[in-house]
Amino acid sequence: MNKNKFYNYFDELPLLTDLYQLTMSYGYWKNGIAENDVVFNLYFRQNPFNGGYTVAAGLEYVIKFLKNYHFNENALDYLSTLKNSDGTKIFEIEFLDYLKNIKLELDIDAIEEGKLVFPLEPLIRVRGPIIQAQLIETTLLNIVNFQTLIATKACRIVLAAEGRPIAEFGLRRAQGFDGGISATRAAYIGGCSGTSNVLAAKIFNIPPIGTHSHSWVMFFNNEKEAFDAYIHALPSNCTLLVDTYNTINGVKNAIEAVKNKKNVILKGIRLDSGDLAYLSQKTRELLDEAGLKDTKIIASNDLDEYIIESLIDQKANIDIFGVGTNLVTAKDQPALGGIYKLTAIKNNNRWVPKIKISEQPIKINIPGIQKVKRFYDKDGLMSIDLIYDVTENIEDIEYAIDPFFEYRRKKITDFEESEDLLIPIFKKGELVYNLPTISDIREKLQKDLRRLHYSHKRLKNPHIYPVGISHYLFNLKKRLIMEAKGYE
Amino acid sequence: MNKNKFYNYFDELPLLTDLYQLTMSYGYWKNGIAENDVVFNLYFRQNPFNGGYTVAAGLEYVIKFLKNYHFNENALDYLSTLKNSDGTKIFEIEFLDYLKNIKLELDIDAIEEGKLVFPLEPLIRVRGPIIQAQLIETTLLNIVNFQTLIATKACRIVLAAEGRPIAEFGLRRAQGFDGGISATRAAYIGGCSGTSNVLAAKIFNIPPIGTHSHSWVMFFNNEKEAFDAYIHALPSNCTLLVDTYNTINGVKNAIEAVKNKKNVILKGIRLDSGDLAYLSQKTRELLDEAGLKDTKIIASNDLDEYIIESLIDQKANIDIFGVGTNLVTAKDQPALGGIYKLTAIKNNNRWVPKIKISEQPIKINIPGIQKVKRFYDKDGLMSIDLIYDVTENIEDIEYAIDPFFEYRRKKITDFEESEDLLIPIFKKGELVYNLPTISDIREKLQKDLRRLHYSHKRLKNPHIYPVGISHYLFNLKKRLIMEAKGYE
Repeated sequence: MNKNKFYNYFDELPLLTDLYQLTMSYGYWKNGIAENDVVFNLYFRQNPFNGGYTVAAGLEYVIKFLKNYHFNENALDYLSTLKNSDGTKIFEIEFLDYLKNIKLELDIDAIEEGKLVFPLEPLIRVRGPIIQAQLIETTLLNIVNFQTLIATKACRIVLAAEGRPIAEFGLRRAQGFDGGISATRAAYIGGCSGTSNVLAAKIFNIPPIGTHSHSWVMFFNNEKEAFDAYIHALPSNCTLLVDTYNTINGVKNAIEAVKNKKNVILKGIRLDSGDLAYLSQKTRELLDEAGLKDTKIIASNDLDEYIIESLIDQKANIDIFGVGTNLVTAKDQPALGGIYKLTAIKNNNRWVPKIKISEQPIKINIPGIQKVKRFYDKDGLMSIDLIYDVTENIEDIEYAIDPFFEYRRKKITDFEESEDLLIPIFKKGELVYNLPTISDIREKLQKDLRRLHYSHKRLKNPHIYPVGISHYLFNLKKRLIMEAKGYE
Repeated sequence: MNKNKFYNYFDELPLLTDLYQLTMSYGYWKNGIAENDVVFNLYFRQNPFNGGYTVAAGLEYVIKFLKNYHFNENALDYLSTLKNSDGTKIFEIEFLDYLKNIKLELDIDAIEEGKLVFPLEPLIRVRGPIIQAQLIETTLLNIVNFQTLIATKACRIVLAAEGRPIAEFGLRRAQGFDGGISATRAAYIGGCSGTSNVLAAKIFNIPPIGTHSHSWVMFFNNEKEAFDAYIHALPSNCTLLVDTYNTINGVKNAIEAVKNKKNVILKGIRLDSGDLAYLSQKTRELLDEAGLKDTKIIASNDLDEYIIESLIDQKANIDIFGVGTNLVTAKDQPALGGIYKLTAIKNNNRWVPKIKISEQPIKINIPGIQKVKRFYDKDGLMSIDLIYDVTENIEDIEYAIDPFFEYRRKKITDFEESEDLLIPIFKKGELVYNLPTISDIREKLQKDLRRLHYSHKRLKNPHIYPVGISHYLFNLKKRLIMEAKGYE
């Protein structure tokens, strides 16, 4: 390859995985069990940010990844070079031929992007040959962990702003190109109104937004000259950054700069440092005195949902918030701990549920092939989610039981409205799902948010939304734990 | 585009920028000042992680980005569609033609990858037409902020392990594809020994490594069967994960599995949960009793430099550490606050230094066109770095002065060994630098680490490495601040 060019990896994404997925796949193949059917669940154990909800995101990327899944010659050539420490080749040539001819034939069900989701619910359920389910694990986790994390963070920030628009400004501090691009997508799903990231705006059809930087002001002899030059060039795009030297003077200079100019409207003032509560109030006063009641105040500078909530509490006069680093890196929790666990295997044509034991109860998975149903109360609010086994008849299930404490349960037979959360995406490898537009996904989230009680949306100590499992799954889990531990 | 494929953006990277860079560029162009020469510095204000040093990384990506900088038709078509809120087009067609024909002619100097760097030092100094310097800002920050952050994190973890290898396992929790791929590169620069990320291993020529997962064990009827099947398939690759059900039983099963098998060596035992200090000691005992003195113990599970330091303090018997999420997301500080500031502009053929004022002294930049020189003491240890102006004669500089407190200074005239840190990378847009291999970069870091006193490498309260500025720059800065504030 040309060492002066970026390595273009989009045709080799099957290699974007952990080596052990390939060595285990080789192991399954070598043991003649590669095509045994299994089920894996991709899920998380805790809402991020100590929050009360999570916003599903990443499915579109997952679909694109699976749709184009193919080991090309370049990828296979590389794998053929890999050696064990004793110098022998890791992969036999026949195995690489097998990989070359792999055509995914998985059944994949998933919760749609933009839906509110909660701990333990399978965001993606993968059913099919173990080798295929294993090969895709790492990439699915990479995609869903990050986009779900950022969509959730964005949603928290957007809710904290109580209707004021959030502009996503994070690219310069994002974790790599894609840490910027896919973060922008997820932030828009989560409710942001636009982005400074032009490439992401283009790819995902998101409104691109921006003002100017301090360097514009510094380039000129003084701030007035800088504002005049900006207005000369961009009369219809007139948001001025006022804190290069002194914020209050900057506001005055901005007002002066548009005064008596025909066809120039001061659309906005941007504050990027200092005490935003105080400065925004002062700025508002000056703007109002000058008759510029429609000029918006945009604030940025290391904002997150907590600072925005506090600014609003302090009656800051801010109309639009620009949020960067804390949003696109999810600074206070930069990873969602999503996992991908085996929950069943087919043995002699019969499904056998599987469990992973741990000393920590939260780390023990729910076994079986699961579905998820959401129940709504008479006011149309989300009331409880039930995880149950595909072999169960939903009509026969009376209670949703807390996965850890059997005595905590909720009757589900009285609900009139319910919704299946897992939607078929691939059937035997064929895409059976119509990808929604990003606007549809945004709307799906807003609809769900309207149906979620306020207490779950609170930043501090949110009320925990209940997720229960069926009696059958509760007992199955208990039995498998006892068996694994060797108790009667 | 085919909506089922990933958007391949590598040919449109000039759009991976903030919109305001493009609107400001349009503003410079419209005002007829687009090609005025300026200087920008890319630098950071604080070592990440409260540490005593930072590892420069990302330059190779920067070079590839700049080498291939070109607005293609697709990118320009998109820009031509962008509108102001009043419906007018943001960019005139003549400006888009200008962008189309842009050929970078910047002078770029940078500190090489793998070098230890410190706050306020220009990692990259960009000199040339303001429009060009502005257009590349966001992408350079995105690259350097992230890779420098992760290389530094990796270096901290590697040093904490005191010679034990660190395997990077972070892909599944990384921030997007590139948050995994470029993190792996940076982690390897920082001293990791290998990665689980196969694609990154291929792209950057990094040793790929891996064991197997819990799902392998869960697929079989019991752990013994699982280990037998693994050994059957991968006799030369025999590291067994023992904590699926019960760690100590797992170790016994692993020992049993290799007993009396010809040509099978139990290379390693992997622990992935529980009390790693206790379990590793118990595991070592069991292995030694079985005569498996060469079997290595590999530990993973949310490790970072602090936990590794503590495990070693507790005499944990761990030979190799696997580190994932905390490394590739730099969990405790997921963004380096790198910035890109205008430091000089050319006016009537004369360079004029520039300053950005702030109430926070650390946020006031050093003005002028800067060079950086590192001085070594008689033992060959790094002693102080000096930032000075290109117009100064280094022979005439007597002291390196603390940038904030004039009375703190160090005499530099007695040092015999010194090193210029900024290296020419591009001259008038032509690449004049030979890209080192990743091995060279790793070696460069190890060499620097040997020359950095231990006190700066400590995790807790590291000794602050001194970075001083010349008397000329100190006075220049003071004068410009006073002028900007309107004092005499």
